[in-house]
Amino acid sequence: MADIKFRVKAKSESPTKTLVKARNFDIIVDEPADLGGSDLGPNPVEYVLAAFAGCLNVMAHLIAKEMEIEIKSLEIDLGGNLNPARLFGSSYDDRAGYKQIDVALKVDSNADEETLKKWVNAIEDRCPVSDNLQNPTPVKISLKK
Amino acid sequence: MADIKFRVKAKSESPTKTLVKARNFDIIVDEPADLGGSDLGPNPVEYVLAAFAGCLNVMAHLIAKEMEIEIKSLEIDLGGNLNPARLFGSSYDDRAGYKQIDVALKVDSNADEETLKKWVNAIEDRCPVSDNLQNPTPVKISLKK
Repeated sequence: MADIKFRVKAKSESPTKTLVKARNFDIIVDEPADLGGSDLGPNPVEYVLAAFAGCLNVMAHLIAKEMEIEIKSLEIDLGGNLNPARLFGSSYDDRAGYKQIDVALKVDSNADEETLKKWVNAIEDRCPVSDNLQNPTPVKISLKK
Repeated sequence: MADIKFRVKAKSESPTKTLVKARNFDIIVDEPADLGGSDLGPNPVEYVLAAFAGCLNVMAHLIAKEMEIEIKSLEIDLGGNLNPARLFGSSYDDRAGYKQIDVALKVDSNADEETLKKWVNAIEDRCPVSDNLQNPTPVKISLKK
């Protein structure tokens, strides 16, 4: 299959608020007041979890269809801890981002436990966001004045 | 500094549409029609880019303040290619996610080029989303019936 290109265009509207255009959609990113923001939208690391949730939902249903199992309902809780010390420049001991991301898939399905384990393993392997988080993804930043 | 915990709760509303709750915010994730969705929101990998854009904006301003440089305006274009073959299960040759993420920072600043290069390097090192993409992030998925 041919690669698909995805792109967004973002504009800084304040030191914490970013307006992102993805096709015809506007995404507002901000920080909560206790992180110095104006709290007009979820913050960047919350959007990472949201992206992951959306990807897991798509993969969960696509792979369930392949495996001929029924998903009656699916809820996904995601969370992670990060130490803001590096972000704020006060210490470089910890990494900047999430140390781990915990995902709970709450599924109502007709499949047995063993089948659901195979289903989870396939979701994890084939989900693009899972891959970009779990494995190193090269980032190339260029500067344009 | 103490770790901060972030979390979201997501519910599958269709095989492609996910409603994500992040604090008091609703985030709608969907797929475009050509990827089998109902196109009611950006898709998961677009949200990854949006999260990254928002994080870069916050770090850009925070570090500019530390370096005592002025950012008059900042636009950020982000893009990446991914091969959907693994997602669709037709081939496992390529990784599932973005092969690389390209970021263009368009900045209007009073700083010289050398100073801006240091600024970009610090942004890249201290941005949580940059870290979670560029370096491996453990993911733990648990299954709850």
